[in-house]
Amino acid sequence: MTKYALGVDFGTETGRAVLVDVADGREVATAVYAYSHGVIDEKLPIPGAEIRLEPDWALQDPQDYIRTFQNAIPAVLEQAKVKPEDVIGIGIDFTACTMLPVKQDGTPLCDLPEFRREPHAWVKLWKHHAAQPEADQINETARKMDQKWLDRYGGKISSEWFFSKALQILDEAPEIYAAADRLIEAADWVVWQLTGVETRNSCTAGYKAIWSKHEGFPDKSYFKALHPQLENVVDEKMTRDIRPIGGRAGSLTEQAASWTGLKPGTAVAIANVDAHVSVPAASVTEIGRMVMIMGTSICHMVLGDEEHVVPGMCGYVEDGIIPGFFGYEAGQSCVGDHFAWFVENCVPASYEAEARKRNMDAHQLLEEKAAKLRPGESGLLALDWWNGNRSILVDVDLTGLLLGATLATKPEEIYRTLIEATAYGTRVIVDAFQQNGVPINELVACGGLPEKNKLLMQIFADVTGREIKVTASKQTPALGSAMFGAVAAGKPAGGYDSIYAAAQSMAHLEGETYKPIPENQEIYEKLFAEYLRLHDYFGRGENNVMKTLKKIKAEVKHVA
Amino acid sequence: MTKYALGVDFGTETGRAVLVDVADGREVATAVYAYSHGVIDEKLPIPGAEIRLEPDWALQDPQDYIRTFQNAIPAVLEQAKVKPEDVIGIGIDFTACTMLPVKQDGTPLCDLPEFRREPHAWVKLWKHHAAQPEADQINETARKMDQKWLDRYGGKISSEWFFSKALQILDEAPEIYAAADRLIEAADWVVWQLTGVETRNSCTAGYKAIWSKHEGFPDKSYFKALHPQLENVVDEKMTRDIRPIGGRAGSLTEQAASWTGLKPGTAVAIANVDAHVSVPAASVTEIGRMVMIMGTSICHMVLGDEEHVVPGMCGYVEDGIIPGFFGYEAGQSCVGDHFAWFVENCVPASYEAEARKRNMDAHQLLEEKAAKLRPGESGLLALDWWNGNRSILVDVDLTGLLLGATLATKPEEIYRTLIEATAYGTRVIVDAFQQNGVPINELVACGGLPEKNKLLMQIFADVTGREIKVTASKQTPALGSAMFGAVAAGKPAGGYDSIYAAAQSMAHLEGETYKPIPENQEIYEKLFAEYLRLHDYFGRGENNVMKTLKKIKAEVKHVA
Repeated sequence: MTKYALGVDFGTETGRAVLVDVADGREVATAVYAYSHGVIDEKLPIPGAEIRLEPDWALQDPQDYIRTFQNAIPAVLEQAKVKPEDVIGIGIDFTACTMLPVKQDGTPLCDLPEFRREPHAWVKLWKHHAAQPEADQINETARKMDQKWLDRYGGKISSEWFFSKALQILDEAPEIYAAADRLIEAADWVVWQLTGVETRNSCTAGYKAIWSKHEGFPDKSYFKALHPQLENVVDEKMTRDIRPIGGRAGSLTEQAASWTGLKPGTAVAIANVDAHVSVPAASVTEIGRMVMIMGTSICHMVLGDEEHVVPGMCGYVEDGIIPGFFGYEAGQSCVGDHFAWFVENCVPASYEAEARKRNMDAHQLLEEKAAKLRPGESGLLALDWWNGNRSILVDVDLTGLLLGATLATKPEEIYRTLIEATAYGTRVIVDAFQQNGVPINELVACGGLPEKNKLLMQIFADVTGREIKVTASKQTPALGSAMFGAVAAGKPAGGYDSIYAAAQSMAHLEGETYKPIPENQEIYEKLFAEYLRLHDYFGRGENNVMKTLKKIKAEVKHVA
Repeated sequence: MTKYALGVDFGTETGRAVLVDVADGREVATAVYAYSHGVIDEKLPIPGAEIRLEPDWALQDPQDYIRTFQNAIPAVLEQAKVKPEDVIGIGIDFTACTMLPVKQDGTPLCDLPEFRREPHAWVKLWKHHAAQPEADQINETARKMDQKWLDRYGGKISSEWFFSKALQILDEAPEIYAAADRLIEAADWVVWQLTGVETRNSCTAGYKAIWSKHEGFPDKSYFKALHPQLENVVDEKMTRDIRPIGGRAGSLTEQAASWTGLKPGTAVAIANVDAHVSVPAASVTEIGRMVMIMGTSICHMVLGDEEHVVPGMCGYVEDGIIPGFFGYEAGQSCVGDHFAWFVENCVPASYEAEARKRNMDAHQLLEEKAAKLRPGESGLLALDWWNGNRSILVDVDLTGLLLGATLATKPEEIYRTLIEATAYGTRVIVDAFQQNGVPINELVACGGLPEKNKLLMQIFADVTGREIKVTASKQTPALGSAMFGAVAAGKPAGGYDSIYAAAQSMAHLEGETYKPIPENQEIYEKLFAEYLRLHDYFGRGENNVMKTLKKIKAEVKHVA
């Protein structure tokens, strides 16, 4: 009898349910629910009210997550003609840190009439960037108080993370902070809605909320130094009971069964994060293989069996990705976004016309033209810092650089150079891990870019000098969540005992791989040496021109 | 009785005759002759023959210059209804170094049947760049033999200049070199055709043929070191009798009178160069005011009353521009070309569509958008080296750099940044002169750019901190030639005694000037400091990445 597991992947604009055959990971049906309110970044979606948001705000409506369950899950069951009793488990993954204030019983504050018109009562989406002053304070205070945990996060806590957002609520809407019985990751909140039980997962706690298995959260004295009322935030609004991923959060309630059409009692996994859940779905459950989730940005994840401080990574968390391992994370903030910027702003009308005539999009045309160039042929070199540098410099104030242009420089040469620059950026990250005791022997790619741009994949192989495999699934996070659902169900129910076992059966790679081409590697070694010199010159303080220009820009804007 | 002078300006694609009122410089009529063979850079224009040229070659047909006289001069006389006897003098200016091999009587070798199929028998246009190996040899030999004159040319002789081209003829076509009784600048050759008398002007001799008033040409021993047969090149193929500009070369012959419709005996001025002849036409006949001829590139010219070595300038020549002064020249190799490159390669279809809809060209749209930005607002900075750096680094292997890009960077921000970069380039030149004893108090602009781009002019004023005046004439070289024609005629004939006197009456500036705006200057001072630091870092050997990339590029091309 075929058994199935369900993965639900909560993205930025949509929620996606994928029904998977537990035996082999085959994806049987997929349904996508587009959030009715999407990303709320202009005004609150309250009919007749005109409550505008400040710049850099990004909110969501928690009922869109419930509607995802109500719409997407019945749709996949219907598509696949699968009986509810054959679905043995559900896993979910979420963007992070995406968090909200709720009451003791889980009711979001924004669903209460008295708080509905208060923006701070709504879900703060991962890309809500308005808590930068709070993040600055968190970092400054941590440095002053010599907080050791700062090293675990490359020396810097992001404005996107949990306590930056929590402190912003306290700073700007103390009545909301006071009314919130719980501050919770949306990932954990949706699991609570399925199971009726509040749990907190080790992945978001570790990567986004400064928690570690052995040291827990920062001391109360630290939180008190940030704000007197924040002293007991963990005990008052969170919990110290953090559950490792790979476990079972609980069972589907009657209510959640009625939303979804599944059976009450179906196993529900501890929540996970979209990036991290992709690691086992990319078949990586051991050290030495780095997973790259390649889209608008790249998230790099690798497992280690020892604790190492790798300067400039985003963070490492014990049990954060796969139980029993340290999960290391790094990132590049501008990859697919980089090429999209280029196509929107720098591709001449003649190229657009050619693309249209040949029924291609501009990216395809540029890739075709760029693929005809050899490494080094353009004479160009770029620093891929159009959106700052996440790893390993951890500096949002760095900016992009293009060098080597002549009057003969063509758009496809610049396009290829931007691809090469992102590959050098990954190479810097790979080298940093390798040099600090976390070996990287092979790369596994997932996300939207690998299938879109073969040239990019080959350049990444050539530049890193490592073979790149690509995941067979194009819905890796949802597959990963389904795998965790199968683990939550357990072997007796037809699932698996561990995520290792699940990965062995359910995760697959494409047959085709990208292997470094020795002639290209040789040239890229020379070019990478030049990249690295510019990287250090502009990125490590020898010439702070990028920051100076940003400062002048800010002054000019201020005067206006 | 109104008297007239004629200026004939020989450009790259066309010859232009302008008839000017001697009293006030009013331009009475203009006619342009497009050379029937234009720039010959693919194959010789011999019907039925398939004689192809190597890359980097650029030739012309000397008969196109004669046809300019035959077509354009009668046309202006006809247009203006001016009687030939009222035209008192002719002056000409030419591109340089544009040179050709001729027989004793002035017959170009390419007009002789036995040499017509030999490319080296034709006119080598200024932008014939195939003599780079010869230029390298000239420079290397000069350094080895410690030739003092090298300092007068910023330490480097160009492949475009006279002896590079002469040596190429000797190297590659010794029979042409042997058959040439004279090697001569086209400027001097056309004056010869008008007057029947061979003269050589101090401007091309000084700027292009390593001559100086006090030291003459390099020693025979130097020429011998270049090539045994070159030892007596000056005495065999040229002359040591160099005539200062401002003089009279001779009188129009019967034959030239029949070509042009002018009177035999009309005064003809010593030949001049298009750039240099523009200086008095821009009303500059004294020290302290720099003339900028602004087009695809910028030529900067300034007079000095003393001899100074200014590192990195193109050259200085006593009596080279105005008798009695040292004429200093510097240049930027990529200005209008820079913006043309940008518009062709980097302006997105959406902008082209907007420009079309509003009936503008892309430059106008970009200028309009860029003018709305304040200095420093884009956060961008560029090095204007898309075509190398002429002054003051004298390095063709430098390449362009753009720094500070983000995902919010717009095309008009890059466009403005490229304009600013060219202004910083001029500022470096102005500062070099000023710091080395050649004062620059004011700038005078002529050429095509000033009327096309007001934003650019204001930025140049803000960045240099100097007022910029613009010439009233849009045909400055032809006006300058006409002024020299009036001087050749002399005061008794209704002309002038000197170019100073001619300039006072005939040269005019526009009423409107560009004055530095103090708030802008203040910000540009900060940005220029950052430019200068990058300029020195990449331009003076601290980081030779641009050359390294060019080397890798050359290796890659070589392997292919």
